[in-house]
Amino acid sequence: MSFETTATIASFGGKLLKLAHKATSTNCEMKLNLYLPPGATSDSSNKVPVLFYLSGLTCTGDNCSEKGFFQHKASQKGIAVVYPDTSPRGLNIEGEDDSYDFGSGAGFYVDATKAPYDKGYNMYSYITKELPEALFSSFKQLDSSRVSITGHSMGGHGALTLFLKNPGMYKSVSAFAPISNPVNCQWGQKAFGGYFGEDQKSKWNEHDASELVKSWKGPLDILIDVGTGDNFYKQGQLLPENFVKAAKEAGNDKDIKLRMQPDYDHSYYFISTFADDHVEHAAKYLLA
Amino acid sequence: MSFETTATIASFGGKLLKLAHKATSTNCEMKLNLYLPPGATSDSSNKVPVLFYLSGLTCTGDNCSEKGFFQHKASQKGIAVVYPDTSPRGLNIEGEDDSYDFGSGAGFYVDATKAPYDKGYNMYSYITKELPEALFSSFKQLDSSRVSITGHSMGGHGALTLFLKNPGMYKSVSAFAPISNPVNCQWGQKAFGGYFGEDQKSKWNEHDASELVKSWKGPLDILIDVGTGDNFYKQGQLLPENFVKAAKEAGNDKDIKLRMQPDYDHSYYFISTFADDHVEHAAKYLLA
Repeated sequence: MSFETTATIASFGGKLLKLAHKATSTNCEMKLNLYLPPGATSDSSNKVPVLFYLSGLTCTGDNCSEKGFFQHKASQKGIAVVYPDTSPRGLNIEGEDDSYDFGSGAGFYVDATKAPYDKGYNMYSYITKELPEALFSSFKQLDSSRVSITGHSMGGHGALTLFLKNPGMYKSVSAFAPISNPVNCQWGQKAFGGYFGEDQKSKWNEHDASELVKSWKGPLDILIDVGTGDNFYKQGQLLPENFVKAAKEAGNDKDIKLRMQPDYDHSYYFISTFADDHVEHAAKYLLA
Repeated sequence: MSFETTATIASFGGKLLKLAHKATSTNCEMKLNLYLPPGATSDSSNKVPVLFYLSGLTCTGDNCSEKGFFQHKASQKGIAVVYPDTSPRGLNIEGEDDSYDFGSGAGFYVDATKAPYDKGYNMYSYITKELPEALFSSFKQLDSSRVSITGHSMGGHGALTLFLKNPGMYKSVSAFAPISNPVNCQWGQKAFGGYFGEDQKSKWNEHDASELVKSWKGPLDILIDVGTGDNFYKQGQLLPENFVKAAKEAGNDKDIKLRMQPDYDHSYYFISTFADDHVEHAAKYLLA
């Protein structure tokens, strides 16, 4: 399905496009932002690589476009950045808007199998298949062969799990304060219980980075930043050490860089501070 | 009056302090943000220079702290940044909250002389006297002898007029999309009419950058960025050419750099793109 461009905004020498399209996987109109770096702002023969940024609970694509500062380094490196929404919107499922950590704004990058959320809460298929196919067919300047992924919190979980479930789909992965072991934290248990059912633990494990990493083969160069002042980290919602421990037990932790950043919180003040580093991490692979 | 610190947030290696204090000039509690760069986060003997950023209509100190990207270069240069609010709050003056461009969120950096706004709408005195005195007495790591100023839109007007009215107070000035000739635009006429009175044209001129620049003596190295896609520029609310023309007629325009930035709008996407340049401009003088 082609896109409607609702706004074109100059940013760091490139253009930020506010887009909307009718998505079949999520059964609704989906909004997103696409940053095109200088030189890729029109359908040129100069194809640029693409970095997907997956947002956290309650966010839309706007939060990181406005506060994350990915455009700063993406502009310098010539990398496009995609900022999708975090769930379907307006499906009129009873209760979908009742809490910040489940339903709208909290799709968790899975395909729901439990009614009524199986009617459109398919952010896994949307992000891995429908959205990229639509983008690459509509924006010829985007290089479908060079794609990386990153994200924050729930979106960090999304980045890690989508990377680990789809070998070869993404050239690299990084994460900010990712929910790293959802089956063992309240956020993940609530989401997976609601989207899969309490009795579907094998399904839960298929979307848990600390489970998926056990069977990963090959290199695993991952940059993860977590702030030591992050209240959700302190509450045990993120559990990045569990991810590193699982990788270590699988003998595959040597290239995982978990950086505990002193005093940083869970906000965009934290993300913006280290956004350059995460774009550089992706650029190592996208521009190799 | 000393400050209450309501939050301390790590940002670009330094700390962003959310502050509140009881201000006598504005007759209410005023909130602001103060960014302390690395090495100046505690009362150290290492004094750092200070850049005041004055925000535009409707903003508080939060908008630019979150979206302006000033901390990026201020951190590298070792410059503190002050993000004040744009008006008194909660004075319970009838009508003060009725419009986005007058009253609360729209103090225009003047001292009102017309009732009822003369009861607290004194952002000129607050920004030039009460706030800096309070900051320098409470934060010994701030160097009161090295202060520069910048701002956006209404805050660009504030930066230019406060600089031109107070020779020697600020080491440098720059502006993003400033209201450059308020006596000749709707925003300025509404504000000056409401704060001074329709019959006080001499008072109006005392707060109009294009009038003040006529009598400025000495060097005038000013960086001004305006986006060609800025709707308020197109509507004639900014009139930066009038400021340059007045400086030219006074024989003092040779160091004024008015950069018309292709396609950029009036938003923080514009500000964040050029924030580094404006911190560099201030650093030339603050670190000389």
